[in-house]
Amino acid sequence: MDHRQLRELGQQLRVDAVRAADAAGSGHPTSSMSAADLMAVLLANHLHYSFDRPEHPGNDHLIFSKGHASPLLYALFKAAGAVPDGELLSFRKLGSRLEGHPTPRLPWVDVATGSLGQGLPVGVGLALAGKRLDRLPYRVWVLLGDSELAEGSVWEAFEQAGHDRLDNLTAVLDINRLGQRGPTRHEWDLDAYSRRVQAFGWHTVEVDGHDIAAVDQAFAEARSTALRPTAIIARTKKGRGVAAVEDREGFHGKPLPDAAGAIEELGGLRDLHVEVHAPPEVHEPERPTAALRLPRYDVGGKAATRDAYGRALAALGTARGDVVVLDGEVGDSTRAQLFAEDHPDRYFECYIAEQQMVAAAVGMQARGWVPYVATFAAFLTRAHDFLRMASVSRARLAVAGSHAGVSIGEDGPSQMGLEDLAMLRSIHGSTVLYPCDANQTVHLVAALADCPGIGYLRTTRGKTPVIYGPAERFPIGGSKVLRSSDEDRVTLVAAGVTVHEALAAAGRLAEDGIPARVVDLYSLKPADTATLRAAAEDTGCVVTVEDHHPEGGLGDAVAEAYADGGPVPRLTRLAVRTQPGSSTPEQQLHAAEIDAAAIASAARELVA
Amino acid sequence: MDHRQLRELGQQLRVDAVRAADAAGSGHPTSSMSAADLMAVLLANHLHYSFDRPEHPGNDHLIFSKGHASPLLYALFKAAGAVPDGELLSFRKLGSRLEGHPTPRLPWVDVATGSLGQGLPVGVGLALAGKRLDRLPYRVWVLLGDSELAEGSVWEAFEQAGHDRLDNLTAVLDINRLGQRGPTRHEWDLDAYSRRVQAFGWHTVEVDGHDIAAVDQAFAEARSTALRPTAIIARTKKGRGVAAVEDREGFHGKPLPDAAGAIEELGGLRDLHVEVHAPPEVHEPERPTAALRLPRYDVGGKAATRDAYGRALAALGTARGDVVVLDGEVGDSTRAQLFAEDHPDRYFECYIAEQQMVAAAVGMQARGWVPYVATFAAFLTRAHDFLRMASVSRARLAVAGSHAGVSIGEDGPSQMGLEDLAMLRSIHGSTVLYPCDANQTVHLVAALADCPGIGYLRTTRGKTPVIYGPAERFPIGGSKVLRSSDEDRVTLVAAGVTVHEALAAAGRLAEDGIPARVVDLYSLKPADTATLRAAAEDTGCVVTVEDHHPEGGLGDAVAEAYADGGPVPRLTRLAVRTQPGSSTPEQQLHAAEIDAAAIASAARELVA
Repeated sequence: MDHRQLRELGQQLRVDAVRAADAAGSGHPTSSMSAADLMAVLLANHLHYSFDRPEHPGNDHLIFSKGHASPLLYALFKAAGAVPDGELLSFRKLGSRLEGHPTPRLPWVDVATGSLGQGLPVGVGLALAGKRLDRLPYRVWVLLGDSELAEGSVWEAFEQAGHDRLDNLTAVLDINRLGQRGPTRHEWDLDAYSRRVQAFGWHTVEVDGHDIAAVDQAFAEARSTALRPTAIIARTKKGRGVAAVEDREGFHGKPLPDAAGAIEELGGLRDLHVEVHAPPEVHEPERPTAALRLPRYDVGGKAATRDAYGRALAALGTARGDVVVLDGEVGDSTRAQLFAEDHPDRYFECYIAEQQMVAAAVGMQARGWVPYVATFAAFLTRAHDFLRMASVSRARLAVAGSHAGVSIGEDGPSQMGLEDLAMLRSIHGSTVLYPCDANQTVHLVAALADCPGIGYLRTTRGKTPVIYGPAERFPIGGSKVLRSSDEDRVTLVAAGVTVHEALAAAGRLAEDGIPARVVDLYSLKPADTATLRAAAEDTGCVVTVEDHHPEGGLGDAVAEAYADGGPVPRLTRLAVRTQPGSSTPEQQLHAAEIDAAAIASAARELVA
Repeated sequence: MDHRQLRELGQQLRVDAVRAADAAGSGHPTSSMSAADLMAVLLANHLHYSFDRPEHPGNDHLIFSKGHASPLLYALFKAAGAVPDGELLSFRKLGSRLEGHPTPRLPWVDVATGSLGQGLPVGVGLALAGKRLDRLPYRVWVLLGDSELAEGSVWEAFEQAGHDRLDNLTAVLDINRLGQRGPTRHEWDLDAYSRRVQAFGWHTVEVDGHDIAAVDQAFAEARSTALRPTAIIARTKKGRGVAAVEDREGFHGKPLPDAAGAIEELGGLRDLHVEVHAPPEVHEPERPTAALRLPRYDVGGKAATRDAYGRALAALGTARGDVVVLDGEVGDSTRAQLFAEDHPDRYFECYIAEQQMVAAAVGMQARGWVPYVATFAAFLTRAHDFLRMASVSRARLAVAGSHAGVSIGEDGPSQMGLEDLAMLRSIHGSTVLYPCDANQTVHLVAALADCPGIGYLRTTRGKTPVIYGPAERFPIGGSKVLRSSDEDRVTLVAAGVTVHEALAAAGRLAEDGIPARVVDLYSLKPADTATLRAAAEDTGCVVTVEDHHPEGGLGDAVAEAYADGGPVPRLTRLAVRTQPGSSTPEQQLHAAEIDAAAIASAARELVA
C-alpha cells in the first residue's frame, strides 16, 4: 500500500478499535490508537501471512505483547478479511472468540497475552525455533507497550535475543508515554530506551510512530538488518486522532466518552481490505522418529529420579525428533544435560532466567515442538505467571522440578521446592506427577510427551531404592498399591521420597500388629480417586505424607478424592510444617516429621 | 588496613571458606574465593557496622545476593569477631545458624538469599528506605555473582535504582566467568556488563577483583559518587589461589578435593581480626502515631472491597507513621493510590515490576517499616519466588491482590487471579484473608499491620453488598456464621464474592424446605476449624464455593479442617473448573457454576 492508503488504514483501525470497545462497554481503545499506524504499515507492507492457513510453516508470527490492545489486533484481522465486521462488535461478549485479551481461541493467535512482559520472551522462543529448529525464513514481530518495559522478563528476552543474534525478530515499542495510572518512568525519552536495548546487543531505530513513511522505512531496516534483532522505538500518542483523549491521562482501559464523535473526528467508517503478503512456499521440517528405547534400572538398586529424568529425556530425544529441551543453567543438577550430550541441536541454554526459559518453550510448542523445561522445583516459582499464562495459551509443556523438598539436605530452604505441587496443581488443566523410583520416572517422562496442557514432573536430588521393574506401567491418573491385605486398618498415601518412608513405617506397624496399606500416589493430578476411595472404605483411616508444605500438595489431592459425597475416612496429614534449616537429608525428614517413625506414630494414633 | 594486611585478610577468608565447606562436606568454597579480596577490602576499609548492635540505625547493610558464597560471609563474620572459629566449622550442620545459604537467623543478615537475583532488588528497597524513609546516611552494599545477572529481576533493580538516583547503593559484581554448569553468557567481557548497567543510569568501575589497591580505590569511588548508584564490575577467578580449582570447570558447589593442601597453598591458617568502622551516631526516625479512624460503610449499601482497601490503607497511614505502600503501576485499580494522596512520602511507585515491588518491601521491613504491596492477584504470581524467600527471611509483609477470580468479568483469564489463594496458602507461616464486604475489609487491612509473616488480603473488582456493621470484629482465624438454625441440613462455606451467592442460595433452599447454614470463611489461613467442625457435626453436609481454581483454595482449606481424625462431613466443592473467556461478572459466575443457582443445586444433590 502507498502511504496515503496506509494513513487511511491506520484511521480505519482506530475507528474499528473505538467501535469494538464501544460495543463492549469496556476495553482499551486509546492503547490501540497509539499503535494503529505502526500495525497498519506492518500488516500491509511487511507481514507475510496466510490467514486462510494459520498453520502454514512459512507464516510470520505477530504477537501483541501489549495484549490489552486487542481491539487493534481484531481490527487488523478484520482488515485482512479474517474477521467479519459483525464479529468485531462481539468483542468481550459471552461466547465470542474476541476476548478482552487475545487467546489462541483465534487461529491467528499463537499465544495468550495480557500479563505484560510475556510477549517478547515468547517471541524469542519463536525466533529461536525459526533459526535453530524449523530453519525457516519466517519473521517474528512483537508489539510492546512502554509500561511493560519495566518487567524484568523483557530484559531476559532482550538479553537472550541479542546474544543469540536473532535477526528474524523485531520488537516494536509503542512509546505512548502514558501507563495505566499516569506517565511511564521514561515518558518520551526514546534515547533512554535505545541505550538500554542497544546495550543488550540490539539494533534500534527511533521513529515518529505516526509518520507513515518513517515507520515503513523502519520496518524495511529491521528486515534488512543482519545478525542483530531490531527494536523499532516509536514515539506515539495514546488515543491518537481524537482530541478529547489524545495524550491525556484518565482514559486508559475504557471506551471513548463520545464514540460517535470520535469516529467522525477520525474520518468515519472505512472498509479497506488488505491483501497480506503470502508466506513463502516452504515445508514443515522433518522430525524423524525411531523406536523408543528407555533406560532400565535393576530392582533393588538405588538411583536418583533426577538421573532417570535425564537419561529418559535423552532416550526420548532419540525416539522423537520433535522433543526439545531448555535449561536454566542447572542442567548438571536437573540432569537435562544428558539430553544435550546426545542432541545438542535441540538443547537451549537459557542461563538463570526461568521466565525466559518457560516463555521460549511456549513459543517453540506453538510451532509444533515438544519442549521439556527444567530447573530446581523452588525456582520454578520464578516462572509462575508464565506457567499460568501458558495454560491460558492452551500450550503443551513438560516441566520438571528437581531438588524437591527438605530431602535435598544441607543447602537449606532457599533451594527446597516446598510450594511447587501447590503451584502446579492450581494451574488449569495441569498434570502433576511425582515418581519415587527410577523406572517409574522413566515411564512418566515419556508419558509427558503426549500429555496435553502443562505436565509437571517432580524429581528428587538423592538416590532412592528402585522398587519397580522396568516393564511396569504407570498410567497418568493411576497409583500403585505397594502393600495391602484384607485386614488393613490404615492406609498410608505417599509419593516420591515419602513412599520409601511409608513402606518402612508399614513394616514397623506390622510388628505392632497394625496391618497397613501403602499407596504410591505418583499421579497427584489427576489422582486415582477409585483407589483412594477403596482405601477409605476398606481401612477407614488414611495418613498422607509429603515432602512439601501442608497446603496444596498431596494431602489436599487426597482429601479432594473424598469430596462429592462419597465415603470419607479419618485422615491425618503429615507435611513440612516448620521452616527447615541445614542438615542431612535424613535429619531433615526427621525434623519435618515425615520419616518412617513419624508416619508409624501418626498411624498408631489414628487407629487407636 | 593497609594493602599488605588486606591481602592477608583475603587469604584468611579463603582459608576459612575452604575449612567451613570441608567440615560440612558441602558448600561453595570456589564461589567464595573469587570474591574474598573484594569483601576483605569492604569489611576492613569501607563498611560501617556494629556487630554488637545489629539493630543500630546507622549500620550499613551488606547483602550477599550470591547467597551460595555463605562460607565467605561467615568467614567475614569470624574476622569481625562476631562468629567464633568453632561455630564457623558448624557450617551446614543440624541446628547451626550458619545455614547453607544465609538467613536472618544470624542477627547480621537482613534477608535470606540463595534464590539468585533477589539480593539487589532487596538492596534497592533498603537504599530507598535510607534515602526516603529513614533519611540516614547508611550505605547498602550488595555482592552479586555473574550468573545471576541473567535474571530479569536484577534489571528491574538496576532500573529502579538508576532512576531513583540511589547513590547510597553499591553493587559489587563478582565476574568469575564460571556458572554452575560452565561458562557464563559473557564470561570475562566486563564491558558487556558495563554497557548494560550504565544504560540503566549507573556509574560503573571496572576493576581487577584481586588487585587490592584497585579494589580499595573502586570502593572509595563508589562512596564519593553522587546522584548515581555505582556498580563495581570486578574480574575475578573462581577458586582463586588454589591451582587445582582456580578458573576450572567442575568445581562449583563442592568442597575442595584436597582441603589441607589448599590451605597450605593459601598460606595456612591466620587469625586476623578486623576492627570494623563504627556506624555514625544517629537515631531511629520518628514514626508518629495517631488514633486510628477507619472508614465506615453503611449496611445495605454497596462498595467494592478494593475501594475499602484503599480507604482503610490511607486511614492506617494516618494512624501509623510506620506504614508504607508500594505500587506496581496499578494503584488506580488496587486503590493503593488513595494512600498516595494522603501520604506521598511513604508511597513508592515501582511501575510494572512485581518482583522489585515485593523485594523493595522486604528491604524496607528489614528497617522496621510496615509495607503494604498490591497489584492484581493474577500478577502476584510474578513475585512468587520473592514471596517464598520473604518467608525464609522471616519478613513481615502485607500483600493485597485485587481483581480476584472470574468475577472481574470482561477482561478475561489473563487478568483473573485464580491461583493466588493456592500460592499464598502454601507459603510457610502465611495468613490468607478474603473479605466479602467493605467493613470487613477495613478491619482486616488494619489487622495485617500487626500480623507476623506474609499476610495476604484478596479483594474484588466489583461492588458487593455491605452486610456487616462498621463495629463488627473480624479476628484473624475467625469466621462469621451468617445464617443458621437447629434444623440446618447443609452448610454453605464461602468467602468473598461467593458469600453473597451462598446467601442467595440459602434463600432458595429455604423455599425448598432445606434449611442451610452459611459460613463466611473470610480467614482461609488460619481457618476457623471449630466452626467448620461444628457445621459438619450439625449438618453432615458441606458445600464449599470459591472464585478460584479447585486446587489450593477455600475447598482445600475447609477439607483440611476435617483431617486429624475429627468428624468428617459429606463434602461438595464448587470452584472454577473451566477456562473462562470474556463476559459479564454475572455470566462468569454462572458459567463457572459458582453462582447461587449452582450452589443451591449442589446442596440439593448433596442432601438428597
